[in-house]
Amino acid sequence: MIPERRFCALVEYDGTDFFGYQIQARERTVQGEIEKTLKKVAGLDIRIDGAGRTDAGVHATGQVIAFNATWEHSLADLHRALNATLPPDIVVSKLRVASRNFHPRFDAISRSYRYTIAQQPWPSVLDRHYTYHVKNRLDVAVMQQASRALLGSHDFASFGKPPQGDKTVRQVMRANWSESGPRLIFEITANAFLYRMVRNIVGTLLEVGSGRLAGNKINEILDARDLRRSASPAPAHGLCLVKVSYPEDVWNSPAI
Amino acid sequence: MIPERRFCALVEYDGTDFFGYQIQARERTVQGEIEKTLKKVAGLDIRIDGAGRTDAGVHATGQVIAFNATWEHSLADLHRALNATLPPDIVVSKLRVASRNFHPRFDAISRSYRYTIAQQPWPSVLDRHYTYHVKNRLDVAVMQQASRALLGSHDFASFGKPPQGDKTVRQVMRANWSESGPRLIFEITANAFLYRMVRNIVGTLLEVGSGRLAGNKINEILDARDLRRSASPAPAHGLCLVKVSYPEDVWNSPAI
Repeated sequence: MIPERRFCALVEYDGTDFFGYQIQARERTVQGEIEKTLKKVAGLDIRIDGAGRTDAGVHATGQVIAFNATWEHSLADLHRALNATLPPDIVVSKLRVASRNFHPRFDAISRSYRYTIAQQPWPSVLDRHYTYHVKNRLDVAVMQQASRALLGSHDFASFGKPPQGDKTVRQVMRANWSESGPRLIFEITANAFLYRMVRNIVGTLLEVGSGRLAGNKINEILDARDLRRSASPAPAHGLCLVKVSYPEDVWNSPAI
Repeated sequence: MIPERRFCALVEYDGTDFFGYQIQARERTVQGEIEKTLKKVAGLDIRIDGAGRTDAGVHATGQVIAFNATWEHSLADLHRALNATLPPDIVVSKLRVASRNFHPRFDAISRSYRYTIAQQPWPSVLDRHYTYHVKNRLDVAVMQQASRALLGSHDFASFGKPPQGDKTVRQVMRANWSESGPRLIFEITANAFLYRMVRNIVGTLLEVGSGRLAGNKINEILDARDLRRSASPAPAHGLCLVKVSYPEDVWNSPAI
C-alpha cells in the first residue's frame, strides 16, 4: 500500500478571473480550482492549505500550498498531471514532498508583495490586467521617504483588519519604491499582513505621491489605529504575491 | 462648416480576443472595433487605413492607422472620446492631425516586430498570452548566427506569401536575438513583410536553436524560394508589431 505523503507546491495564478484565493460555494476561486484538479488527478477529496488568502483580482507568482495525498507514481508525473489538468490561469511551478507537519501559512516567516503602477497618459493594453494605470505624475522620492515610517514593528490597525479579530501588530522588513520607465514598483515584505493591508498602504502612499497628503502624515495615521484613516485601497489588479519565505528552503529538496 | 481633416493614430492592442487586424463580416477584428468606435464617436461611416494586417492572436504596441473625419472639438477631446469608447483591449496611445495624403501602409519605410519566447520548465501564467513557452533549452548563439543570413535584400518566398501575389523580395535591416532571464526576444525590422513571414522565420530559427536544423541551412532555404521549406510558423501569441517608421516623424507634430 502506498503511504500518504505531504506535498508542497509553488503556485502562480492570474487573479483576473478569480473571486480570490479562498474557496467559496458558488464562485470560481484558486483554491476551488486546485482542489477540483486534485480530485480529478488523485481521485481524492483533498483540502489544500495555502500561505495567503489573496483578494479577488490579486495575482500570485509565489503562492505556496500544501496537501496530503497518496500517489503511486513519481513526483514529476504528479506535477505534469496537475499542470495538464489545471485551467490555463493557474500553474504549479514547483512541486516537492514536504515534511509531514509542514504548513504553508503557519510556518511562513515572511511574505513579499509587489504592487505595479503604470504612470503614463493612456493605459498600456498588454499590461492592463497587471498594472494600475495613473495619468498624473507621482513623486516617487516623497513616496519612498513616507514608506520608511512603515519599517519595523507597528500596530497596522489603520491599514487593515486581522483575519480572525486577532492582533494587528505586524513587522515590516522592507518597503521600497523603484522606477523602471513609466512603471513604479512597490515591494513590501512583512512577517504577515492584515486583510487589504498592502492595498490600503499603496492607496495612502498614492495620496502622498500626488501631493494630496503630506508624507509625514503616515506616522499620524499609523498612531491613530483606525481603519477610517487610510485612503481607499489601491485596485486589486496591480498587486501580486511574489514570495513566501520559510525557515528552511522548502524548494531545495530534490524533486523525487 | 468644419472641414474634413486626416488623422493618424498610434494604436496598441491585445490580439488575444481578435480574429486579426483586418475587418471581417462576422468576426471581431481590430479594424472592425475601431471603425465601430469612430461611428459612435464621430457619427460617420469611416473607413480606416492601417499600416499592417496582423494575424489573429498577434499583438501590437505600434500599429498606425489613419482616417478622414470632420471633428469640431479639440484633438484631445477626440482622443479621450475614442479611448473612452474603445473596448479595453484597444488603446489609441497617440493621435495627430496628418497631412491630407498620409497613408500608414504606403508611406511606411519600415516595420519592426518582436517575438518573445519564455524558456522555462512551466509557462509563466501572467505572460501566457504574450510569450511562447518552450521547455527545452535553445542555443541563442546559434540562432543569432543563423539570423545573419536574413540581413539585406533577399527573395523571402520560402518564408511567406506576398499580400497580393506581388513580389517576394524584402529588405531586412535588423534581425537580433537577446536574452533576458528566461526570456528570448527576437527583434526584426524590414522595409515590409510577407504574410506570416516573421512567424515562419521564428519557427525555422527555433528548429536551429533546438539543434534539429543546421544554422547554415537558412541560406539554402532562402535560395529554394519555396514556402514548403520553412518550418511551421511559431504561434501567433508570441508576436507583437512594435513600430512602423515613416520618412518624417509623424508623432512630432503638435497634438492640436
